[in-house]
Order: sequence, then structure tokens, then C-alpha cells
Amino acid sequence: MAHDIRIVTEAELRGAVGLDLDTVRVIEEAFGALSDGGVVMPPVLSMDLAEAHGEVDVKTAYIPGFSGFAIKVSPGFFDNPKLGLPSLNGLMILFSAQTGLVEAVFLDNGYLTDLRTAAAGAVAARHLAPERVQVAGVIGTGVQARLQARAAHLVRPFERLLIWGRDAERARACADDLSDMKCDIAVADSPADLVRDSQLVITTTPARAPVIEAAWLHPGLHITAMGSDQAGKTEIDPKALVQADLYVADRAAQVEKLGELRGAIAAGLWDRGAPVELGDVIRGRARGRQGQTDITICDLTGTGAQDTAIATHVMARLAGRDVGAVIRA
Amino acid sequence: MAHDIRIVTEAELRGAVGLDLDTVRVIEEAFGALSDGGVVMPPVLSMDLAEAHGEVDVKTAYIPGFSGFAIKVSPGFFDNPKLGLPSLNGLMILFSAQTGLVEAVFLDNGYLTDLRTAAAGAVAARHLAPERVQVAGVIGTGVQARLQARAAHLVRPFERLLIWGRDAERARACADDLSDMKCDIAVADSPADLVRDSQLVITTTPARAPVIEAAWLHPGLHITAMGSDQAGKTEIDPKALVQADLYVADRAAQVEKLGELRGAIAAGLWDRGAPVELGDVIRGRARGRQGQTDITICDLTGTGAQDTAIATHVMARLAGRDVGAVIRA
Repeated sequence: MAHDIRIVTEAELRGAVGLDLDTVRVIEEAFGALSDGGVVMPPVLSMDLAEAHGEVDVKTAYIPGFSGFAIKVSPGFFDNPKLGLPSLNGLMILFSAQTGLVEAVFLDNGYLTDLRTAAAGAVAARHLAPERVQVAGVIGTGVQARLQARAAHLVRPFERLLIWGRDAERARACADDLSDMKCDIAVADSPADLVRDSQLVITTTPARAPVIEAAWLHPGLHITAMGSDQAGKTEIDPKALVQADLYVADRAAQVEKLGELRGAIAAGLWDRGAPVELGDVIRGRARGRQGQTDITICDLTGTGAQDTAIATHVMARLAGRDVGAVIRA
Repeated sequence: MAHDIRIVTEAELRGAVGLDLDTVRVIEEAFGALSDGGVVMPPVLSMDLAEAHGEVDVKTAYIPGFSGFAIKVSPGFFDNPKLGLPSLNGLMILFSAQTGLVEAVFLDNGYLTDLRTAAAGAVAARHLAPERVQVAGVIGTGVQARLQARAAHLVRPFERLLIWGRDAERARACADDLSDMKCDIAVADSPADLVRDSQLVITTTPARAPVIEAAWLHPGLHITAMGSDQAGKTEIDPKALVQADLYVADRAAQVEKLGELRGAIAAGLWDRGAPVELGDVIRGRARGRQGQTDITICDLTGTGAQDTAIATHVMARLAGRDVGAVIRA
């Protein structure tokens, strides 16, 4: 029996949904649902294509109460820049959670992933950063550096933004791209300087050795580490996880394999069992920050639940609107 | 950077590619490639949605030398018939094996899976059935019963086809649907009768207890068991696997978990280690049937390599043709 499937391109998606408090709320709800239980989120399907210098990840999650579930395919082909193509691309498919029928294909080239990843940063900041953030610092100079800065500002309207990257020119370009933000922006001289002066720090790098040292932690600091999403990546000295008053995971089962916790466990530093999850803090099942001087760290590895949440959100936004092509299949 | 993506519906796919010797050759090549090595085929991503009485499987494989790789999503939602919808549907996405860019979305509702599954039956018959098959028998009365009969006839042009199913009316309907085939067709009284009179038998059921007894095996018989594709399903008495002169798997690592071999291992009957794979027989790395009187069994659980092969084949068929919608994304 034929039914309508909506096919939406990246350009159309960019026109329909952006980084705003509505998107943050949707991702917050996905984390809450993870905490409520009943979410079905299989391990990531991962295919390593050494021959093509590429990799493909497939993520999905079913969230009770959501009308659809997404399957996201994220290819990364690292010789693409030689061909003038981006390394990362991919798409999301939205299925009806009631019938399994395909409802939409979002040819987003990773845009929705960028969005839901940035929104998760805002959720972490909302629930874990000090109430009052005067200075925020972003480490890294890529797409997520830009988006995380904007996402954080939605929930903690800081007055000053510091940016640091290994390449000072890229850091300046990042600052320039953010010049429309309603705050001062400066490039920091070093990550140590950036951390010292900030109450909220977001790390957005693919680093394989810590960028932030444990000695730099100071009272009233919150760090969101969103760079590490596979074994081998790490942005924070494992000792920092234990020194902090609170270490929070997006998903406990993931951070111990793909996130910062992996290093702390490997080094024999971590003996606190499964870490608190962000959803538990959102739902009030676990205590978050206890006061302005606490040191908190949130580790984001990225979940299929976020993909399902953003895809369902986009579909709701598009309802009744003439966006994309409709195919009867 | 925008590129063109072709979106093709089930109806368009049915017009473009069917069950013929060309399709059989493509699937044969996929099995050969599996034997050659270098294929990357991750375990199936499987999501069980008890709440919705549904399940979703994601399969993929990268085959060296193929221009693309497919990711196939197969949802099964078993309350759909109550809504007048089919239980099974889904789609395939074809990616460039060089850049990872999406090349095509095949909204096939499972049609390409039906096709590649039937073609695998023909490949098994070509390489394992006796040279001369006068009577073929199909057990089961669904879509695959029909397709497997036609596929087998492409490579072993038998004179008589027997069909048996638990529901005699469905068996007759199946026979009627095949009345255009160039052979006599009859409904068998029992599976024992069907096996006794056939040189080639294909089982296409979702049975959870053996339909074929080991005592029924006779010289010059080949059986292809394509029904079992998950733990708990079985169509053939495990003793038959040991009694046969040769038992061949589509993929050794799969049949011991999802296929007929699982039962034989569980019963302590199987002590021959990893079974021969169909691709090894195709490539001449393992011996197949040794003579007209051998008894052979082939166990097909379905592989991502078949999906990649059929999707790549479809794309080649569509090249230069105005089929489907082209979206610049």
C-alpha cells in the first residue's frame, strides 16, 4: 500500500529548523526519556573501510511516546577533501514508531547531527553550569566550536566568549564567524588561560591526548567535553574526572567505551561505578550542581535518542508546510 | 557541495529489475567476493520494539571492487495487518564506496530483498543441485515460495514443480500464481511426498520446528533451506545436516547463530567445525557436489553482501535512464 514519503535536502532543513530554545527543549526531553527508561538504543553499527580510508556509523533509538524513530547513517571518508568534498556527510531516515513505515528521508549531510550535538551542549550547560556565567570558553575551531558557543549562550547569556585552538588563525576565523553574538569575543593565548578565566568551558576537538589539565580546575567551573566519541579520543586529563565534584555522562554505557571515562577507568582512577546520567539530573533523580563553587564535568558522546528527537522535531516543524519533495512509494 | 541523489520507488524498481540470470550472476559474484576476502560485513544491527510489536534490522556490507555499498533497513511491525498495512517494508540506501556520498535511496518496501534472496536460491541450486533436476519441490506458500520456484527454474529447468504448505488453499493459490511457468505444477499431499519425488527442494517457511525429517533424505537430493534467519527458526531436522554428504552455508558465522546449524550444534550433532561457504564452492576453493547421487544441503540466512550487490546492480541498470526522482542535496 503506497504512502507518502517526504524527501528533504540540507538547504531545506536549514531553512526549517535551527539552533534555538525549542531545539534545546526537544533534546532535553530526549535525555529525560533516556532516564525514564523504555528507550531501546542498540549499540552503534560501525563499519571500518580501511581500503577506502572511510568509516560508516549507524545509530538509532526508539523512545516511548515519540511518534517516530530515526536511523542515522554517518559516513566519514577522509580522502574526500582531496576531491574537494567534505569528509562527513550522511542522512537520517524517520520511521513511524507505530507502523515502521518510512515517513521522511532527511538528506542533511550531517546538519541535524550538528544541531542535536550543539543542543545537547546547551542542555548540559542549563543543568550543570553555574547559574551565573560571565565568561565562556570554547576549545576547538570547527563547526561545533561555533555551534556550541551559540548553544551555550541560549541558556547562559555570558558577556564574554574566549576561543582557543591549536591554529591561531582558525581561532580568529571562528571568532569572526561569531561576531554577531551579543557578547565580547576574544582569542585566548592558551587553553590554560581560557579555562582560568571561564566559568563554562566546552571542548569540541578530536584530540587524542588531553587538552585540559586537571591542575587547571577551579571552583565554579563547568566543563562539557563533547569531542570524544570513540575509543582513543580524549580531551580532559582523566584525573580531572575524579577531582571534579560531579562527573555526568550522556549515557553511562557509552562514556566508558567512547568518552572521557574510558581513560579514567584504564588508569585505575575511577572507582565510583556507573556515572550519573544527564537525564537523571534533568528528571531530578540525581543531584546536579550543589552550588556556585562546585566543579562539574559533562561528557557527551552522542546518542541515537538525540537523533530520533531531532528528526521527530523536524517532521513536526514541517507538518502542513510545502517543504521538500513528496514521493508516493 | 551538492550532488544528485536518485530516489526510486518500489513500482519503478519493479519496472527496472527483475528475477533473471543477470540478477543471479550479480548475487553469485557477491558470494564469490565473500569467499575472496576483504568484505567488511558488520553484525546486523537489530532493534526489538516490544511495545510496538515491531523489530528493525539494519544490514550492510562493503565489497572490494563494487562501486557502492548498501545500507538496508528492514522494519517488521506485526500489528500492521490490522491497519491494512503489510508487516514488512523498508528501504535501501546506496552510498559511493569511494566517497561515502549518498547515491540513491531505493524505497523498495522489501522488493530488492525478495529479489536477492530468490537469486541466492538460484546460486545455491546452480552450484549444488544435481545437474539434472526433473522435479523440484517448494515448501511454503509465501512470496519466497513463488520467487524461489522461478529462480530455481532459471538454472535447473525442471519439468515438474511440487508445492506444499500447511494450508492447502494457500498452496493451490501459490500454484495458480505460478501457472505461467513452463512446467507442470501440482500441490503435494505431504512434505514427505514432496521430498521423495524431488531432486531439488527449497524450504521457504518461518518454521520453528523441522518440516523436513532426516529419514526423508535420499540419494540425488539437494535442499536449500532459506527460511531460518534468526535464532529459534528451523526447517530441517538437525540430523539431516550430518547425514548429508555436504552442508554448505551462505556465511559460516551466521548459520551457527541464525540458521539450521544452530540446532545441530545445540544437539551436539555437529563436530565438523566451520562449514563450507557457498562462495568457496563458487570459487572452487571447496568441493561441491561430487556426483548425481550425493545429498547436499545449503543454508541461506541472508547477507549484507547480497544487499550491496543488488543495490549496485540496480544503480547500474538505471544509469542514463530517466527513472525515479533526482534530488540535488
